[in-house]
Amino acid sequence: MTLTSLDWETFQALSLPDKAACLVEDRRDLHVLFAQQYTRERLDALGELASKIRLVAKTKAGSDFLTSLLSHKRAMLYFTQPSTRTFLSFSGACQILGMGIGDVRDSTTSSEFKGESQEDSVRTFSSYFDCIVMRTQEQGLAERMAWVLSHSERPVPIVNAGSGKDQHPTQALLDIYTLQRSFEKQGGVDGKRIVFVGDLKRGRTVRSLASLLARYRDVRMTFVAPDPLQIGQDILDELDAAGTVYERTDCFEASIPEADAIYMTRVQDEWDREKGESARLDISAFWFLEKHLPLLKPTAILMHPLPRRNEIATGVDHDPRAMYWRQMRNGMWIRAALMACLFRRDQDILGYAG
Amino acid sequence: MTLTSLDWETFQALSLPDKAACLVEDRRDLHVLFAQQYTRERLDALGELASKIRLVAKTKAGSDFLTSLLSHKRAMLYFTQPSTRTFLSFSGACQILGMGIGDVRDSTTSSEFKGESQEDSVRTFSSYFDCIVMRTQEQGLAERMAWVLSHSERPVPIVNAGSGKDQHPTQALLDIYTLQRSFEKQGGVDGKRIVFVGDLKRGRTVRSLASLLARYRDVRMTFVAPDPLQIGQDILDELDAAGTVYERTDCFEASIPEADAIYMTRVQDEWDREKGESARLDISAFWFLEKHLPLLKPTAILMHPLPRRNEIATGVDHDPRAMYWRQMRNGMWIRAALMACLFRRDQDILGYAG
Amino acid sequence: MTLTSLDWETFQALSLPDKAACLVEDRRDLHVLFAQQYTRERLDALGELASKIRLVAKTKAGSDFLTSLLSHKRAMLYFTQPSTRTFLSFSGACQILGMGIGDVRDSTTSSEFKGESQEDSVRTFSSYFDCIVMRTQEQGLAERMAWVLSHSERPVPIVNAGSGKDQHPTQALLDIYTLQRSFEKQGGVDGKRIVFVGDLKRGRTVRSLASLLARYRDVRMTFVAPDPLQIGQDILDELDAAGTVYERTDCFEASIPEADAIYMTRVQDEWDREKGESARLDISAFWFLEKHLPLLKPTAILMHPLPRRNEIATGVDHDPRAMYWRQMRNGMWIRAALMACLFRRDQDILGYAG
Repeated sequence: MTLTSLDWETFQALSLPDKAACLVEDRRDLHVLFAQQYTRERLDALGELASKIRLVAKTKAGSDFLTSLLSHKRAMLYFTQPSTRTFLSFSGACQILGMGIGDVRDSTTSSEFKGESQEDSVRTFSSYFDCIVMRTQEQGLAERMAWVLSHSERPVPIVNAGSGKDQHPTQALLDIYTLQRSFEKQGGVDGKRIVFVGDLKRGRTVRSLASLLARYRDVRMTFVAPDPLQIGQDILDELDAAGTVYERTDCFEASIPEADAIYMTRVQDEWDREKGESARLDISAFWFLEKHLPLLKPTAILMHPLPRRNEIATGVDHDPRAMYWRQMRNGMWIRAALMACLFRRDQDILGYAG
Repeated sequence: MTLTSLDWETFQALSLPDKAACLVEDRRDLHVLFAQQYTRERLDALGELASKIRLVAKTKAGSDFLTSLLSHKRAMLYFTQPSTRTFLSFSGACQILGMGIGDVRDSTTSSEFKGESQEDSVRTFSSYFDCIVMRTQEQGLAERMAWVLSHSERPVPIVNAGSGKDQHPTQALLDIYTLQRSFEKQGGVDGKRIVFVGDLKRGRTVRSLASLLARYRDVRMTFVAPDPLQIGQDILDELDAAGTVYERTDCFEASIPEADAIYMTRVQDEWDREKGESARLDISAFWFLEKHLPLLKPTAILMHPLPRRNEIATGVDHDPRAMYWRQMRNGMWIRAALMACLFRRDQDILGYAG
Repeated sequence: MTLTSLDWETFQALSLPDKAACLVEDRRDLHVLFAQQYTRERLDALGELASKIRLVAKTKAGSDFLTSLLSHKRAMLYFTQPSTRTFLSFSGACQILGMGIGDVRDSTTSSEFKGESQEDSVRTFSSYFDCIVMRTQEQGLAERMAWVLSHSERPVPIVNAGSGKDQHPTQALLDIYTLQRSFEKQGGVDGKRIVFVGDLKRGRTVRSLASLLARYRDVRMTFVAPDPLQIGQDILDELDAAGTVYERTDCFEASIPEADAIYMTRVQDEWDREKGESARLDISAFWFLEKHLPLLKPTAILMHPLPRRNEIATGVDHDPRAMYWRQMRNGMWIRAALMACLFRRDQDILGYAG
């Protein structure tokens, strides 16, 4: 079963694991569409590759080696939903590998394409570029476009850089990579307790990450949120099916000492159904403040997908366990790793002796 | 007679052929301003160069050779009239040759320049860049700026990427190149019948292409349009003067079997004199649908400058004679060829043995 | 006393010379924040480096050498106050040295960062980039961010590309460099008479340049303006302290013959306290017209930071003493010199034999 052999209705109706099988050929991605297409084995491989890239990039010679790898390729960054952070991270990843970049970054520019179907717009990009990184408000659009291109004469890869409330796979991958790096000398991610805090209901980051973490052995999860923002039953069902142990609580402080990683999130009020819905909730009891630092294990880490508001006090930033800035930089490395895989340069990088 | 020796009024008053003579030195362009500056001989040479670039770019070594050619040059893409498609095509062309890129892509940014004359803005760009690709709403502006720069201390070339209703020379060149490529093994463009369909009155693409095709031997043209959108008399006069055989008709289906190339166009309703003017016309009889495919010669091709609306049914896209996506990609190659000529690297490319 | 050892309140309260001392380490910049951080010795060194870069860039081999120097570094151009001119100049400077570029160029994009502190935004950029060039409406912001980053785990340099009415150090440096180049064969800047004309009260350019010129021997200054736009007392106090001879006048024509350089400026009406305030002033007596050319010394030069309105008649542009276009291009060279210094490649460039 391959993406090319299926019509759109059939592909769309597949389960996530079946879709995932369609997106891989020779153990490498045709497209990057959803977090769940990554097996444990591939997550480990991607992490290893990202770390190698990071290491190689430290020297001028290594950096020049990396920019030589994809200097003949060009990526289109098609962001109809603006996200400067994700945009810069992807463009950094591309530049590290020497790729040329084209971009559409706002809705003004994209309004030009009105009157043209989205399929035609994306085929246009595929005429000029070797890869399309797309971020959209619309759910499922990246999947649709991947199918369209795989059925065209220029089947260039689609990388989903966030599609509505739905998927943001590279965010999940950078979170996993941050955990891998942080626990490298502590036996890896297996067996760790991850505490999720904040708006767990609507944050796609938490949902995707929890889903991926279920692929690790004996990972335990704690979901800390006020009741209206607690994690969705669908994720809990997934964890149950995977045999993952978890608990839900609204008591933040009690959860800190047992955490190996605390994953803080902000209130996603852009998804409020009525204006001010979230503002009525007092969530200050779910903020990580300087007074909490002594409660945290010396080996634990504190994560946040950023941007933050008040969820983490700035006084915490200089603590060595505050991992969120490095986590963001990890996003650039893992995206570079993904790009290298898409264009089959992973083995070249892993073999670089420099 | 050279551009530098003429004052603006004298240059502006010249006929197109005389202007064209001013724009060339040693058989290469000083500026790229209008389609008609290209003789048959130069059209052939540009097509040959574009094909060589396309071929060389297929390998990593060839691509690295190409990016080394103009790595010391930088192009300004000055688009006060947004056109993402043309912008991306030009930026692709520049990247293929290793050129750095700067850009102004919207009217917000360009509003900054209010209070400054357009001449000063363009001279500013010429201070930082080695070439200015400009797209404007305003007719004739590229020509004016070419004259200004040729009279300045940094006479960098201007490339017209579309100036109002007036000229869009690189579109005409990519259309010619698509015909050249498509009929390479059928004796070339000479003797072919080209059928133009749609809004022939207001589409500058059709007007420029018809003008260039008159330079080929025995090319016959059919203009298929409802009467209010039929081709202008000025073009017909030009064809008469060149001795080109043409006919006009409003019967689309009858024109299909005899066509070697069908050039579809959309209704240019942005030029309506009153709102809804075009919408009142039923032009569905001028759409190319799947049912028309059997009427089309096996060796014929179907072109469209894109974006399309309903002029070509999406069901036609997979037919091997549907050439519009490749046509768009050809735009990148022919623009790269133009850039290579402007900076005198054409012979290096043609001589590349790789 | 180093930037890293001081808390924000202490650093902010320092005098300019003391701040300047904190910004330099091993005779090179940690950050580029204000014009006054450059001693005479460093101004000379920067000018020498800029000239060498300009010379080396003239050949393809030299240009390729330059782009190899910082091909492993990437600069973020963070322009919340748009300035296409300065943006293009910096991006040109970066491209000359092979640096990758990321950008935020308008307030639409930057509005995304609402809800996030400016410190967090800048730390975000520092996660992806090796240098942040920032232009803001807000006074002192570059200084604050330099302090923030110097206290973070990724202390990447900040380059101030204009902060409100306050500072625009690279403009002052390009003005100095233009004077250095122009008087290279006339004994340099020492002993020259510089005539400033126009809105001297509100133009930060004039204020910074006057301040830097006080570091040269026997430079005399004439400030020519209508009374309401005359230079501020604070600058005069500075000149007095430095022992610099100056005079103020409202008679433009009389000042021309004695000038070695005339520095024209436009009325800064964007800083009017009430609408139309400046428009009521007739400043046409302070315009440089073609009729003034015979009054100007053969060796004198005419400068303008651009954009111009009517301060210099376009008929003056072709006079060899009109230096403003070259002055603008000098901005690209001096910015490239600054970047090369920030990343310690100045000696490589000065030693290039090519």
